[in-house]
Amino acid sequence: MQQQISAITLGVSDMARSRKFYTEGFGWTPIFENEEIVFYQMNGFVLGTFKRSSLEDDMTRRAGTSAAAVSVSHNVSSSDEVVPMMDKLIAAGGTMIRKADAPVHGGFRGYVADPDGHAWEIAFNPSWAISDQGYVTFGV
Amino acid sequence: MQQQISAITLGVSDMARSRKFYTEGFGWTPIFENEEIVFYQMNGFVLGTFKRSSLEDDMTRRAGTSAAAVSVSHNVSSSDEVVPMMDKLIAAGGTMIRKADAPVHGGFRGYVADPDGHAWEIAFNPSWAISDQGYVTFGV
Repeated sequence: MQQQISAITLGVSDMARSRKFYTEGFGWTPIFENEEIVFYQMNGFVLGTFKRSSLEDDMTRRAGTSAAAVSVSHNVSSSDEVVPMMDKLIAAGGTMIRKADAPVHGGFRGYVADPDGHAWEIAFNPSWAISDQGYVTFGV
Repeated sequence: MQQQISAITLGVSDMARSRKFYTEGFGWTPIFENEEIVFYQMNGFVLGTFKRSSLEDDMTRRAGTSAAAVSVSHNVSSSDEVVPMMDKLIAAGGTMIRKADAPVHGGFRGYVADPDGHAWEIAFNPSWAISDQGYVTFGV
């Protein structure tokens, strides 16, 4: 047993629109792609953006269209970087969910939805260490 | 810019029921918990299980109750480990989505929903390397 997640896979209805959000918004480079899936090598695991109908077929479960009770977080290394990153994501096809502000637990964060409605938190959290390799360690 | 995800956060309606799934099903140990959130240190990032209403408040977006087009994957190191892990998750409150079988791209996998309906793929994928620290590297 490992305390390990191998992949996070997000269902996508328009592959080109999603690819633009991740490659131009975040500036990430795919490690593999074809017409139904794009994989990004992340910090110790893999992000997949998978054609929604193919993900549904693989799960053998249909997904609804309402917003999910899920968020994915990308942390930046200073509070000054939060808003510019959110602006880049919106310029690349994202939608504002919550403008950045300071949560009670400290730091600074906002939320942007990707073109398929998946929620991304863009955060500065001074107590979570990020290594040069991007490995993130919980801290309080 | 880092190709980095800091956290994935899943909304949870019953904290004790969810905690049982993750601690007894997967066998994972929380690194922090209070009455509205449990954090698990993962392989280079953090898994959060957050009271659904608190996550919604933080996002300032209500979530629907339909299944999401999202899956999270936990890879095991041999095909023989897939079914026992799925059985453990179901014994700890999970629900079968897809019984394990062999996908066309190779390996062996099935899907189990956590008590809040979040889809977990349990997979053996011989081309994705997993280090002793649990860091997962994409491979084809």
